[in-house]
Amino acid sequence: MITYREVQNESDSIERGVTHIIASGKTAFAEYLFFESQMHGVCVSIDGDVQSCESDEHMYHEALVHPALLAHPHPKTVLIMGGGEGATAREVLAHKSVTKVVMVDIDEEFVSLCKAHISSWGESAFSDSRLEVLYMDIKEYLDTASEKFDVVIGDLVDVADWDSSVASLYGETLYKKIKKVLNPKGIIATQAGALDTGESVNHKRIREMMASVFSDVRSYGVIVSSFYSLWGYVMASDDLSVLDTNLTETFTKRAQDLELIGLGVESLITAFILPNQIKKNIGI
Amino acid sequence: MITYREVQNESDSIERGVTHIIASGKTAFAEYLFFESQMHGVCVSIDGDVQSCESDEHMYHEALVHPALLAHPHPKTVLIMGGGEGATAREVLAHKSVTKVVMVDIDEEFVSLCKAHISSWGESAFSDSRLEVLYMDIKEYLDTASEKFDVVIGDLVDVADWDSSVASLYGETLYKKIKKVLNPKGIIATQAGALDTGESVNHKRIREMMASVFSDVRSYGVIVSSFYSLWGYVMASDDLSVLDTNLTETFTKRAQDLELIGLGVESLITAFILPNQIKKNIGI
Amino acid sequence: MITYREVQNESDSIERGVTHIIASGKTAFAEYLFFESQMHGVCVSIDGDVQSCESDEHMYHEALVHPALLAHPHPKTVLIMGGGEGATAREVLAHKSVTKVVMVDIDEEFVSLCKAHISSWGESAFSDSRLEVLYMDIKEYLDTASEKFDVVIGDLVDVADWDSSVASLYGETLYKKIKKVLNPKGIIATQAGALDTGESVNHKRIREMMASVFSDVRSYGVIVSSFYSLWGYVMASDDLSVLDTNLTETFTKRAQDLELIGLGVESLITAFILPNQIKKNIGI
Amino acid sequence: MITYREVQNESDSIERGVTHIIASGKTAFAEYLFFESQMHGVCVSIDGDVQSCESDEHMYHEALVHPALLAHPHPKTVLIMGGGEGATAREVLAHKSVTKVVMVDIDEEFVSLCKAHISSWGESAFSDSRLEVLYMDIKEYLDTASEKFDVVIGDLVDVADWDSSVASLYGETLYKKIKKVLNPKGIIATQAGALDTGESVNHKRIREMMASVFSDVRSYGVIVSSFYSLWGYVMASDDLSVLDTNLTETFTKRAQDLELIGLGVESLITAFILPNQIKKNIGI
Repeated sequence: MITYREVQNESDSIERGVTHIIASGKTAFAEYLFFESQMHGVCVSIDGDVQSCESDEHMYHEALVHPALLAHPHPKTVLIMGGGEGATAREVLAHKSVTKVVMVDIDEEFVSLCKAHISSWGESAFSDSRLEVLYMDIKEYLDTASEKFDVVIGDLVDVADWDSSVASLYGETLYKKIKKVLNPKGIIATQAGALDTGESVNHKRIREMMASVFSDVRSYGVIVSSFYSLWGYVMASDDLSVLDTNLTETFTKRAQDLELIGLGVESLITAFILPNQIKKNIGI
Repeated sequence: MITYREVQNESDSIERGVTHIIASGKTAFAEYLFFESQMHGVCVSIDGDVQSCESDEHMYHEALVHPALLAHPHPKTVLIMGGGEGATAREVLAHKSVTKVVMVDIDEEFVSLCKAHISSWGESAFSDSRLEVLYMDIKEYLDTASEKFDVVIGDLVDVADWDSSVASLYGETLYKKIKKVLNPKGIIATQAGALDTGESVNHKRIREMMASVFSDVRSYGVIVSSFYSLWGYVMASDDLSVLDTNLTETFTKRAQDLELIGLGVESLITAFILPNQIKKNIGI
Repeated sequence: MITYREVQNESDSIERGVTHIIASGKTAFAEYLFFESQMHGVCVSIDGDVQSCESDEHMYHEALVHPALLAHPHPKTVLIMGGGEGATAREVLAHKSVTKVVMVDIDEEFVSLCKAHISSWGESAFSDSRLEVLYMDIKEYLDTASEKFDVVIGDLVDVADWDSSVASLYGETLYKKIKKVLNPKGIIATQAGALDTGESVNHKRIREMMASVFSDVRSYGVIVSSFYSLWGYVMASDDLSVLDTNLTETFTKRAQDLELIGLGVESLITAFILPNQIKKNIGI
Repeated sequence: MITYREVQNESDSIERGVTHIIASGKTAFAEYLFFESQMHGVCVSIDGDVQSCESDEHMYHEALVHPALLAHPHPKTVLIMGGGEGATAREVLAHKSVTKVVMVDIDEEFVSLCKAHISSWGESAFSDSRLEVLYMDIKEYLDTASEKFDVVIGDLVDVADWDSSVASLYGETLYKKIKKVLNPKGIIATQAGALDTGESVNHKRIREMMASVFSDVRSYGVIVSSFYSLWGYVMASDDLSVLDTNLTETFTKRAQDLELIGLGVESLITAFILPNQIKKNIGI
């Protein structure tokens, strides 16, 4: 039996039944694997970590994108950090107010592989003239960017080791750079690791670092079955009025035109209500 | 490395790091294992299936018990099917309106082991004079019961194989027997397997069987990190007025005296809002 | 990490690191997988069971073929049961006395896959005019065969379940059919499962069934590292004089022209000396 | 299912079914685990590496001890490096010519645990007045030893990482110290890691280091099923006449009084005949 073994946390692993290996190899930046899992359909993995699976990629990406874009009164320009699969851009572009999306992904080869092997995930985005894709290091981009954005979405790989270079994709340094490219009322939302009653080390750390840079920070989570966990996200802004509105009313009203395949607008709202034991674990 | 391998679904497994084996063996009814997992503290397993772990047993048991007891206008008598750990009874007895709880568990030895090895989970319940514990087959009990109940809570082992005898703990036959011991406005709530975007076979099946016996059926789910999934429950009643109230208002008001360690009352409410893709998977 | 999980025996599993999936799918008869393992090179698996790996396929096949062909005074005609990889035929054809080899494999598609994906293993055999390949059930072949053979080699899949149809490839019924196609002084040798100090259920059973049909039976074993065990074979004959010769002298003399890449002639001889604890386990 | 996962080599793992955990914990020097495996009986593990299992500990220890003691014309004094289980001393003391055995094991607590949990393995040795047990670092012992020995047996843990301190138990430095405590015609034999057709890194390295210190070096291997490999040993001496005798004749004659439960004298002899592909892998 072919299986895909993934380290889930400091002590536990997930072993998935694999029905088919679609593509595997290395780009200049990472090891990739596209495989068909028996349980969750086609999955994409980078450096041993599953990024998304067919059965619920809509849930992951809707949760990543929509809260920030719905919280913002009128998002026009959006920066996507990473997002190689194209699905994040797809969700961003579903917002009609958006006129310009810049997606900065370091790995052109990986993006090509996504276009080839999971084409349906991102094809509407890659053919949308509002999307500009740049292949470069996000830190370099931020250092030199002349544009400003209403929303920044962080769809970057999770941190397996905080002493590795990947950690720079989540540091205080990065959030300060992001702050500079945000318009007034600007919002950043990023994936932020699993929310677990055991430990939620990454989420807690990312949240704290964002809180040291932005005045308002919100954790939220949605079940992503194919990740075998409640997946965490953090949304932050320096404009307190942006996040402190009545989310239920705002989201319900603004989401009317969105077709939500994975979550539904109600789930986007309840994602902000975390169980006590999870809150305790991330120090809120 | 000692690990505990658990079949998670038709194709995937979880492998947990184990720091200590507390007790393992067989009773007349099942193989048991009490172990300390590195990630989620002390865990209890029956027949290879993790039942509860220290890090979030409060979440599992609060979700199992409170929605039904909060939905019922004035629950006085409660029947617990299974519940050997004592934690389900603990949550039931937290409701001051409750005057009598009958817990029917087939496995006296397992209950003794729980009293010995996870004593803090159920000790407040086992020393509460409102609790009566009967060691017998729940089906026999239901056939001969003279008492009637406001709420019935199903805390029985999950079904690994629908052709095995365990399946009789979830069949239409059982729900008809339960119906007979329910008072008017009576509610049954039962654990009902994982809610997954891959497949949710057990939940779908249990829900359908309950729907064939009761006029109103509700699925809900809460993350139980130590189960590595969104855990599903089904609540059912023949009195449409019971479940069709405004849950937010009712729960908030009635839960005021409850100390909710795991979930919080808001999480009990949002548990009923399932993501679209999960709903699709269980056919709702 | 892609891994290949293989059930090794009643309780233990092997998990191999996989660097590349070469081909996977189903023929009319079996699920196949050609993969590159990190440790043992290209491996071929049928129905979840590794058949041979590049790093020591020579050891497995030399041990399967040469003892019988060296024990026989002048083997001319050889029947191979199974042997789809072509490597068994390769070793048989290395014996210059051999004028005719009939290989009967049920699975033409699998043989084609071997020709495509592990071509070097069998190509010398498949291009040798002394080899005739028939695609049919070995039992049917034996029932209708008009030819007789000096040696029969059994290179069939191992039995995972003695209640399955695969068991018919090792039963008493089969050995009686084989007996009928053997010339006087004829020898049969077959792979016969792992020799383990835990249990060696398959080997013991195959040996006993052969002993009920043939007057002389010999177990032998060679380490096949990629199988993570001492691999067992049984050789049998009805002519006591054939196997009761001085193997050391006979093998050494007759093997002079053979190029033994895996084992060497001395290892072929010492394969017949089994440790006491292994002998005890197979009842000898 | 409780399993014991053991890293087997650079890419593959063994997962054993565990029926019972007998004892687990840490001494001042190592993590230990005594467990009952379904397949191979009681097993002892140190730092995640299985040391011996009930089903074939006789095979492992007979192979470790007897070749050196049989090769030596009249072994009287023997030094055991490590050997905490007591089984190595048991095999050494089976040689009637032996008058004095010094066993130097750093870990007194582990030895006590072995006496408690696998008492039958070493009890005949620990109660034998010819055995002296010292609890100290073998390197310190060798630096200060005034005694000399006919045979030194190395029963120390295998090296998982050649950059760790464990590596000092196999280095050239150590072999030079051993050389100083050997009598003329003295022999050292040590366990030396798995012999595999994939890679046999440890064996090759240990063999080379010994060859740089001793004039005559011999690799040999026996199947240890519970290790899932052909287990390698190296025997070395500075007296060429010792190892270059006719092993078959010498061993057979001298082993007459030994009761060989695991291997048998013939298996001790054939252990020195390694398959070509294994020889190639260790560079001989």
